[in-house]
Amino acid sequence: MKAAIVAALLVAASSAATQSMPTPGEILASAPAADWQAVPAEDLLLLEFAGNRTLAIQLAPAFAPGHIANIRKLVADGWFERNAAIVRVQENYVVQWGDPSEKAPLPAGLIPSPDDGYERAGEAPGYHPLPYRDAYASSIGHAGGWPIAADGKAHWLPHCPAMLGVGRNMAPDTGSGAELYVVIGHGPRHLDRNIALVGRVLEGMENISALPRGTGPLGMYEKPEQRVPLVQARFAGSLPPAERPHFEVLKSESASFARWIQARANRKDAFFIGPAGGADLCNLMPPVRRSDQLK
Amino acid sequence: MKAAIVAALLVAASSAATQSMPTPGEILASAPAADWQAVPAEDLLLLEFAGNRTLAIQLAPAFAPGHIANIRKLVADGWFERNAAIVRVQENYVVQWGDPSEKAPLPAGLIPSPDDGYERAGEAPGYHPLPYRDAYASSIGHAGGWPIAADGKAHWLPHCPAMLGVGRNMAPDTGSGAELYVVIGHGPRHLDRNIALVGRVLEGMENISALPRGTGPLGMYEKPEQRVPLVQARFAGSLPPAERPHFEVLKSESASFARWIQARANRKDAFFIGPAGGADLCNLMPPVRRSDQLK
Repeated sequence: MKAAIVAALLVAASSAATQSMPTPGEILASAPAADWQAVPAEDLLLLEFAGNRTLAIQLAPAFAPGHIANIRKLVADGWFERNAAIVRVQENYVVQWGDPSEKAPLPAGLIPSPDDGYERAGEAPGYHPLPYRDAYASSIGHAGGWPIAADGKAHWLPHCPAMLGVGRNMAPDTGSGAELYVVIGHGPRHLDRNIALVGRVLEGMENISALPRGTGPLGMYEKPEQRVPLVQARFAGSLPPAERPHFEVLKSESASFARWIQARANRKDAFFIGPAGGADLCNLMPPVRRSDQLK
Repeated sequence: MKAAIVAALLVAASSAATQSMPTPGEILASAPAADWQAVPAEDLLLLEFAGNRTLAIQLAPAFAPGHIANIRKLVADGWFERNAAIVRVQENYVVQWGDPSEKAPLPAGLIPSPDDGYERAGEAPGYHPLPYRDAYASSIGHAGGWPIAADGKAHWLPHCPAMLGVGRNMAPDTGSGAELYVVIGHGPRHLDRNIALVGRVLEGMENISALPRGTGPLGMYEKPEQRVPLVQARFAGSLPPAERPHFEVLKSESASFARWIQARANRKDAFFIGPAGGADLCNLMPPVRRSDQLK
């Protein structure tokens, strides 16, 4: 953990061939192109908050089709850019944005309180369970590039850092999609199946997680000037092809993914003296890379 | 999660008498004074970084006597104030401070590489295990106001947000205590038993977790001017009694603690529609309060 260790780790990484077990980073660096899947441009939501605070978000339409249909309408309408700002930053919990006035009219045609984003019945298609224990679900694993929690009857996305959820009022309201939050801090998994999750921040967490915490109840900003306006919201698919960022997620079913999990749960690179033999789902978020920046 | 819910939650809290199950906050508010234990002034480390960024830290001498003896010597010597600054902020991982030059001579009499802070043999005195699953340990629970992980042969402190650890170089080095880090983000529990943990931040996490992330390897600040100097380090016990802050931690063995755990793991207050029936150790950090600010 010392500054000096940076040099030592870089040396270790460059001598991978002499090590018996590669590090998680080495496994990713050597994963074949076929083990990565592209994030569809139509699901890649690009946000920019004031101060060049950008986020690239992958939406999960299979998990929350209704909420995401609403988000697409809100983006197409320009509603976020006209009305939304970060209004809440609660330490070790969430960053949340929406309409501070709560009075801006929503575009026509939104689905009221979509009935999705909480859980899906049955097993996730292509589910790869992990043999590790979890406090909130009888089974955890991955499917389709997403972290998954399950109980044999249903499966759902977990509240891990960088996951995107839909703010709501008291149930049975499930939220419109006009108010969104991102998890920062230790995953508040007790929110699983209590609030709709609709995606994951792939890039830019550091642009929102370092915002000042709000001093009001629940971390609300108490002064209007503390709010951080959302200045641009658009989908990568709406940009000219040459201007689109491209992201890839490691395929859950790939051999590289299985090797990466093994290495994460059993760290044997030089710094570690005792491997854990297991790992938490939120510490096993599917690896992501910018495929347009590969050398 | 909406702004409007703040009002709703406050209403719910004020009508506790009419609810069948109190919220975690209501349980803490009604816990008798005898269920709280004072944090010893001699273990309460008060730090101030530039920009009025204060931290109140409870050290855990039972877990890491050697490292903490070193930290006491470093504080008494004024070494931190002369030499230390925050040099690293890594997203979803740690904030770390130490001597950026790595050349400042350490005070005489430090124990080299203390052999503690990783794990302790046997069961923690006064251990109260939880019935919840954990990916990193066969048993989790609490003892003496601390979160505990255990495997039947030994027990240890977990890498949860706000826990304080000792930076080190490659093993068998365990660090001197002159370089320290605090966990931010999802608990990197794979570091458990690989690095010495020596305490917990009781107050002020928002003063360091919102610092800009470093852009160098491992989140190191790349420019000297980005570093945040540590301007004051002293123990509450060294202050005149009238000037000392006072903190209390809910007793692990108290009835209030058991009720708080139950409520945290089975949220039934108005916002929740499906209680989890379990909770992660890092989401069950022992409750803390400022006893000098009680009304």
